Amino acid sequence: MITRADVDAAAARVAGRVRRTPLLEVDPGPPAPAARMWLKLEHTQYTGSFKARGAFNRVLSAKADGRIPRAGIVAASGGNAGLAFAYAAARADVPAEVFVPETAPAVKVAALRAAGATVVQKGDRYSGAYEAAIAHAADTGALFCHAYDQPDVCAGQGTLGLELLEQTGGFDTALLAVGGGGLMAGVAAALEGDARVVGVEPETIPTLERALRAGGPVDVDVSGIAADSLGATRLGDIAYAVAARTGVRSVLVPDEAIIEARRFLWAEYRLVVEHGTASAVAALRTGAYRPEPGERIVVVLCGANTDPADLG
Amino acid sequence: MITRADVDAAAARVAGRVRRTPLLEVDPGPPAPAARMWLKLEHTQYTGSFKARGAFNRVLSAKADGRIPRAGIVAASGGNAGLAFAYAAARADVPAEVFVPETAPAVKVAALRAAGATVVQKGDRYSGAYEAAIAHAADTGALFCHAYDQPDVCAGQGTLGLELLEQTGGFDTALLAVGGGGLMAGVAAALEGDARVVGVEPETIPTLERALRAGGPVDVDVSGIAADSLGATRLGDIAYAVAARTGVRSVLVPDEAIIEARRFLWAEYRLVVEHGTASAVAALRTGAYRPEPGERIVVVLCGANTDPADLG
Repeated sequence: MITRADVDAAAARVAGRVRRTPLLEVDPGPPAPAARMWLKLEHTQYTGSFKARGAFNRVLSAKADGRIPRAGIVAASGGNAGLAFAYAAARADVPAEVFVPETAPAVKVAALRAAGATVVQKGDRYSGAYEAAIAHAADTGALFCHAYDQPDVCAGQGTLGLELLEQTGGFDTALLAVGGGGLMAGVAAALEGDARVVGVEPETIPTLERALRAGGPVDVDVSGIAADSLGATRLGDIAYAVAARTGVRSVLVPDEAIIEARRFLWAEYRLVVEHGTASAVAALRTGAYRPEPGERIVVVLCGANTDPADLG
Repeated sequence: MITRADVDAAAARVAGRVRRTPLLEVDPGPPAPAARMWLKLEHTQYTGSFKARGAFNRVLSAKADGRIPRAGIVAASGGNAGLAFAYAAARADVPAEVFVPETAPAVKVAALRAAGATVVQKGDRYSGAYEAAIAHAADTGALFCHAYDQPDVCAGQGTLGLELLEQTGGFDTALLAVGGGGLMAGVAAALEGDARVVGVEPETIPTLERALRAGGPVDVDVSGIAADSLGATRLGDIAYAVAARTGVRSVLVPDEAIIEARRFLWAEYRLVVEHGTASAVAALRTGAYRPEPGERIVVVLCGANTDPADLG
């Protein structure tokens, strides 16, 4: 569980280490009847996603407490989380090993190495790499860094929510994509009492929706266009606890709407984001989320680790 | 000639019609020793470039004065200016004809039509389309809208400069790409007495550099990677007058540096811009412009009408 106080502490810790990403105020007009609408351009963050926030908070918090052993940190992720931990560790002069499946694309392995990590390829699926990373942490004492289900990670992501409050001068609802739920947990904790959070998920990866229905995180099948960035097989325990406490809703969108929303962001605003991120915009364009008249909305664009070639 | 008062009047006229585009503050560290640095994300403007500002100011100013005839407006441009005039006219319920060469790519013609313009293809080069547009204005009484060399157009572009003053709380230097000089003229007029402007040009299209050396605009040969957006064959008279009055400098960058800077913007910030726009960033990355220690710099990213396919 995390609260606003954890996010405030994270904000002090990561200040100067992460970018204060800009807001673009846009015309909310049709289909949304919202009074005001902003896009949070968090995809311009270091390493191309919000994950840098949580990674810095996890690494710097442990470093300040003397919890980082000679073996450094270890993470399991071929995606945005791995890149962010590699980057944050390098900036904090901490060694990092990142475990990825043997099937990880060469381009992702190269990006992790360029960010300063030692890359270890283990297992033929993510679960194999994850188990190998846990074993490595047990063997060497390296600090295990979870992609989304640790308090410092969630609190770090929540610093984005504090920026929203400052930058907008007040708003009602933040729409954001949910995978494992680290961003959702942090932002919902940051906004508790000030604004609500709506989690948007691909119909093919409904981790939040299933958790809310089941009364706790459950495994879901993962597939579809956004699986590369929102491919967690279950919601984190912290994310569930914060969602239940603060009343986060889930809204589902189909893959076709995600693809359309990503194209729309390029055509209308010249913004390139990854498919998972575009889910949040798809919720408005499809009417899956219908703002109330007068509602002030922020749509979080949380990542852009994507190939823009198909937008030409 | 235009002054800050013209830009203030333009700002009142276009308020609510153009986007207040965001600033991204970035680490100025090497090679720039600047104290603070911001990127102005003007490429997220309506129609994908700053040209929407000048187009709205030209159309709305004429409309307010009863200077728009039944024939509407006419412009000559297959690029950003044409798109902006088509868009602004449609939003102001004014008919627009846009003249382009017979060789204009089908995709550009389609974009102009989609923005609401009647497209006329005349001549085998830009100069032919331009002359046909002037003749059309003479025949029909349509209001001719120049891509950069009219006071209302330059003053409209300058509204970007006013936003910079408000958003930064004060800075020293704005770096921006120069083609015909409409943006440079407007921003230099807006900033006069508050901050200086440095115009960055491809070595292959040095309209400002040649004008400053010759004591007035002269024709230059146009070629290179940025010719699609900065392809004016000479600086505008208004641009020259403002540059001479306010002390705008020219800095030249080679095509290879422009290409590198555009790739850098994607790799580091996940921002996609057109080649002409990337010139401004290239000036810093090559050292063609070297900030003083303590200098506070804004780099204007002014357009993104580009195919991002090669950034994958």
